[in-house]
Amino acid sequence: MKMSKLGEFGLIERIKKSLKNPNIGSDCAPIVVGGATYLITCDIILEDKHFLRRYPPEFVGFKAISVNASDIIASGGRPQSVLISLILPDIDSTYVEALYRGIIRACKKYKCKVVGGNVTSSNKVGVDVFMMGPSKRFIKRKTARSGDYIFVTGNLGDSKAGMELLMMDKKSYAPFEKILMKRHLKPEIEVDISNYLVKNATSSMDISDGLSSDLYQLFDKKKVKISIDSDLIPLSRELKMFCKKYRHDAISYALTGGEDYKILFTQKKKSSPFFNIGKVEKGSGIFVNNRKLKNKSFEHFRS
Amino acid sequence: MKMSKLGEFGLIERIKKSLKNPNIGSDCAPIVVGGATYLITCDIILEDKHFLRRYPPEFVGFKAISVNASDIIASGGRPQSVLISLILPDIDSTYVEALYRGIIRACKKYKCKVVGGNVTSSNKVGVDVFMMGPSKRFIKRKTARSGDYIFVTGNLGDSKAGMELLMMDKKSYAPFEKILMKRHLKPEIEVDISNYLVKNATSSMDISDGLSSDLYQLFDKKKVKISIDSDLIPLSRELKMFCKKYRHDAISYALTGGEDYKILFTQKKKSSPFFNIGKVEKGSGIFVNNRKLKNKSFEHFRS
Repeated sequence: MKMSKLGEFGLIERIKKSLKNPNIGSDCAPIVVGGATYLITCDIILEDKHFLRRYPPEFVGFKAISVNASDIIASGGRPQSVLISLILPDIDSTYVEALYRGIIRACKKYKCKVVGGNVTSSNKVGVDVFMMGPSKRFIKRKTARSGDYIFVTGNLGDSKAGMELLMMDKKSYAPFEKILMKRHLKPEIEVDISNYLVKNATSSMDISDGLSSDLYQLFDKKKVKISIDSDLIPLSRELKMFCKKYRHDAISYALTGGEDYKILFTQKKKSSPFFNIGKVEKGSGIFVNNRKLKNKSFEHFRS
Repeated sequence: MKMSKLGEFGLIERIKKSLKNPNIGSDCAPIVVGGATYLITCDIILEDKHFLRRYPPEFVGFKAISVNASDIIASGGRPQSVLISLILPDIDSTYVEALYRGIIRACKKYKCKVVGGNVTSSNKVGVDVFMMGPSKRFIKRKTARSGDYIFVTGNLGDSKAGMELLMMDKKSYAPFEKILMKRHLKPEIEVDISNYLVKNATSSMDISDGLSSDLYQLFDKKKVKISIDSDLIPLSRELKMFCKKYRHDAISYALTGGEDYKILFTQKKKSSPFFNIGKVEKGSGIFVNNRKLKNKSFEHFRS
């Protein structure tokens, strides 16, 4: 069966079976080292797939670190050590230096350190990052129970809007458009969210493929019923301005747009500094405003 | 400055400076976790760069693990946990399953385990591996001293000959040619060499770019004089047959051929189960049979 038919998630299911490891498919893998739990993860960003050569390389480097920090933080860990596997064509060294400036700046933000890596030549730029860090508690997916409340840690949909603006390649952009583009180019996550999740979350993951897809990833739709109220999904002022200008539906951006790198999590109590968007109930299926949610977000090979 | 002018090693020097980390450029990075030393490393193999689509995918998977195990073992560690970052075009899932069979087989050999990873779609196949494992002593490069003896753990040059045979894409191959091709496709390293190195080595690295290049990597040519006797370099019966048939010089294959994944190390005493190929002396420069060695092995971007 071709990858385009099997899809990313179908492939992951097959790999999971062949490795006999039920944890495959999570944001991170937990390993016990000297009595302590460490989380390890890897995530790559590739030219023409995740970014274009014309994007500022500082942002490309920064984002490569952010997308990994996001996995570690969402799983209840703190970024610590990083390896950079760099794939480079015959470009000018100033590009690579700028890329590394972004990497170093991001590492400063997430309080982690590049300890090593690898360089390979190829026809396109790629930054594959391996990150590890300690965790007081590994927070998994599929562990929410009926009665839990569902939260997101910030505005959704901005990254998709920002990407579309970048694709327009206009000569000039409005200030709100520049903000959206930067949110796509240089996503940032707060490290301290990890502490909150360790104390409170009953399940957690980062929103990288889009809320509607990730709801299917976080929950076991056969065992619980998920009810989302779309009015509760936080939307930025800039996304609303974008949707007004280009006649789009902001909620559909929030549901299907990937790469926001906010965290989707559940907890027992309703009060939280984050945004409650719904509830876990008895039953089965995933619903938005009482309508069954179609899973139509980004998936590698299928999209 | 373009990568082709700066070269892989020039780039690594720049990255080293920008990260202010003197360990950048080693086979592995040592990290201290819960009082114990762990080594972490990453190495990628890419289609059309390190392998062709027509190569058996089991071997591609096996080799991706071997090249990383080789770094860990050469630095005095034992492979333990592995992440696989897979880059895949829209190929048939049987290819990916075969790739994973090779990965699993190699992990069995090196006594390590795949704990997680990532999948991304692209136009070519790539297997980026992140490996970590415990070490009783992190063995570095550039730490050999005058009086030390220089060793390699096995035959050199076979992989280069095997690759050239694969490129010929002949209809039929002689048995010795099949052996050489398999050594290129599916290199294997013995895990127990790590124990020996921890007890005896004063410096160590794996031979991935070719002996002549790696001698420049293992030693500080300004501080010590390296004398290699080419008659002492171990050569396989198959390489000798290949060189006789195709009129090549076996020693130049051993010196410049990469991807043998044998280990180059130094120790104080002369006796060892491995192959003594030379000596570290007072002075400076790297010499083979008293002639200054030209560094002309594989280097990314330049080659």
